[in-house]
Amino acid sequence: MTGNYSSVLVENAVDAFTRLPGIGRKTALRLALHLLRQPPETAELLGDAIKKLRSEIQYCSICHNISDGDTCAICRNPKRDHATVCVVEDLRDMIAIENTGQYKGVYHVLGGIISPMEGTGPGDLTLKSLTTKVESGSIKEVIMALPATVEGDTTNFYIFKLLRNIPVTITTIARGIPIGDELDYTDEITLGRSILNRQPYTGTNGLI
Amino acid sequence: MTGNYSSVLVENAVDAFTRLPGIGRKTALRLALHLLRQPPETAELLGDAIKKLRSEIQYCSICHNISDGDTCAICRNPKRDHATVCVVEDLRDMIAIENTGQYKGVYHVLGGIISPMEGTGPGDLTLKSLTTKVESGSIKEVIMALPATVEGDTTNFYIFKLLRNIPVTITTIARGIPIGDELDYTDEITLGRSILNRQPYTGTNGLI
Repeated sequence: MTGNYSSVLVENAVDAFTRLPGIGRKTALRLALHLLRQPPETAELLGDAIKKLRSEIQYCSICHNISDGDTCAICRNPKRDHATVCVVEDLRDMIAIENTGQYKGVYHVLGGIISPMEGTGPGDLTLKSLTTKVESGSIKEVIMALPATVEGDTTNFYIFKLLRNIPVTITTIARGIPIGDELDYTDEITLGRSILNRQPYTGTNGLI
Repeated sequence: MTGNYSSVLVENAVDAFTRLPGIGRKTALRLALHLLRQPPETAELLGDAIKKLRSEIQYCSICHNISDGDTCAICRNPKRDHATVCVVEDLRDMIAIENTGQYKGVYHVLGGIISPMEGTGPGDLTLKSLTTKVESGSIKEVIMALPATVEGDTTNFYIFKLLRNIPVTITTIARGIPIGDELDYTDEITLGRSILNRQPYTGTNGLI
């Protein structure tokens, strides 16, 4: 008898799926049974994509973003403003900012944020490369675009201390009421900070 | 430029993940980035488990359950009651019944239920094998344990028609108020059927 799943192969697949975030044993079994109902190519494709993803991936030598070559498409793009660097946690946040269409500078991907709870310390991030880059003098502004969490703020402060003796402007993305939100549904901290950090009224909030 | 994900490898992994049920592009990207942060073995293990699952899986020649050999552990077990066959949709439902510890018979895994919406017809199920098995005369009771849905009921009726000329008892698992549920939260159809199918009171409902 091979546990509950009547097959070591199913058992192994379920075990492997449950190592992914947000996937429990029930979902893992559903995924495994789904794959068994699909043509063999589907499982082959997924298995290969996963193995290649980890074994063949490269990182941009300038911004540490995921890349298929030595440098990524954004760092290679001469139309981007290479004197403005936006510091992000990972590719997901970079994609989110790219999707706004509002940013023309380049990025620096930290690969995480300082989180003692998850065992991520400053040494796990691409901080040395950021300092070297800023010290070289070609960067005018570093925009901190980290999550609005305690971990994000800790990382902001750590980077601020690292860079404070270098002549460079350090900014953070604005925190405030999300556009479209009602005031009475906004949490007190956000509302409080949005009052303290009030901005000059320019005749429109970008909505009309 | 390789789309939004700055890497064909990430793109391929995201595409492959989104073919799984319940996984959209955002979740797929989260899974891919998670794998990139793990040791290479994690992705290797998951990729291999998925490929092997589909290419090496075997099915029990008696009950069509997933198996590592020609017959599954339940069909090989001499302590099970081989004259009682419980008809289930798939391995998940079989596991659910096994977990109750209340069933000592064997199973017959249909591999789906009749669903015109999903393009599953009688020909896609293991019905021929079920008929042959019951016709052989060694089966005393067939218990239908299919979902309490229109598709489940359609399949029940189809199998009932297939087997009606064979001397075998056909039963279905009881439908009624789930144990622990309040009457006023139960839907009208379940409540109505539970009144029609009322059972002799045996002094306890198994709760005390």
